[in-house]
Amino acid sequence: MRIALLGGTGDIGQGLALRWAYDSNHEIVLGSRDPEKARTKAEEYETELDSLGRDRKVTGFVNEMAADRADVVVLAVPAYHVSDTVEAVTESLNESILVTPAVGMSRDDDGFHYNPPPHGSVAALAAEADLEADIDWDTPVFGDDTDAKETVMQLAADIEGLRPLDAGGLANAAEVESLTPLLINLARENDGLHDLGVKFW
Amino acid sequence: MRIALLGGTGDIGQGLALRWAYDSNHEIVLGSRDPEKARTKAEEYETELDSLGRDRKVTGFVNEMAADRADVVVLAVPAYHVSDTVEAVTESLNESILVTPAVGMSRDDDGFHYNPPPHGSVAALAAEADLEADIDWDTPVFGDDTDAKETVMQLAADIEGLRPLDAGGLANAAEVESLTPLLINLARENDGLHDLGVKFW
Repeated sequence: MRIALLGGTGDIGQGLALRWAYDSNHEIVLGSRDPEKARTKAEEYETELDSLGRDRKVTGFVNEMAADRADVVVLAVPAYHVSDTVEAVTESLNESILVTPAVGMSRDDDGFHYNPPPHGSVAALAAEADLEADIDWDTPVFGDDTDAKETVMQLAADIEGLRPLDAGGLANAAEVESLTPLLINLARENDGLHDLGVKFW
Repeated sequence: MRIALLGGTGDIGQGLALRWAYDSNHEIVLGSRDPEKARTKAEEYETELDSLGRDRKVTGFVNEMAADRADVVVLAVPAYHVSDTVEAVTESLNESILVTPAVGMSRDDDGFHYNPPPHGSVAALAAEADLEADIDWDTPVFGDDTDAKETVMQLAADIEGLRPLDAGGLANAAEVESLTPLLINLARENDGLHDLGVKFW
């Protein structure tokens, strides 16, 4: 499957790119508003994967080209860039499944707060951490298109240590997205809890 | 420590009463609007504890009396009864620590949704399950009074298998409370996930 990671040069995109490239044979294409940056990062990721014993090809393009003919397009951009990124790539999307892991958050003295409107899930947070660290986390996925959701859940399962969970439709977004600021708040307030994920049982 | 469980005849109160009585030596007092019901339930819980090899005293009173001289008062009532229950026991509270595990939720065809205004945490959900089932769950606790929060976290730790986590102040309520409808949605949508709790790592 061809996966385009728009905003693939940021932390979340990097985590997803490396995890998918390391754990699966999906074709990884990085997108950025700056094609030169996308190419440079793609080479960096290839070098890192090579050093970990994975001979994998990662390519980089401007967002519009990265999205072209991708089976799955992941919007690994900050929440406030979701709208303009979608707008920029609309022509390239065709039948692609669009995945939005970005979560709108605000920060004040008390901590991080969930800040609707909702655009995502915590899938990406789970993938951010060190590639050599073993993870064992859950990834709640929601969406109104059942087939698309199934595909995304399968892609999450392709990353070792991630268990996808069905969190229902788009109307359930707020309950899932509130997890991200909660994870950050718990990491801030409790000793020894960093790079925090979540497991439901 | 004397713990008053107002609404202690409901599912959440029952879970907390049995868990605390089974795992600790705290004095458990059930409160209800109906003192007869509180007494009957208290006897039922004593019988159940006895059958599990615990000779423990549980008493039942009308809410106002149950709250009197309690160190900790837990509002184990539905969210829509939180206000009038607090009002009824105000005179009895004195220096008591007030704990509100109730979470306001609404339900529609898509699932359960977090429904502010916030009054609680998921501590109670974690305690609802079968007393003989081993649990290994986290209990995020928030509150603006640090000493009170410490006490409540210690009480959560007194229940075997519950790990209290500091989720910050009252301003972080929404992020914690959204967990409850999420847990219910995940239990509904995914096979084999019932009596669901959460672990952060």
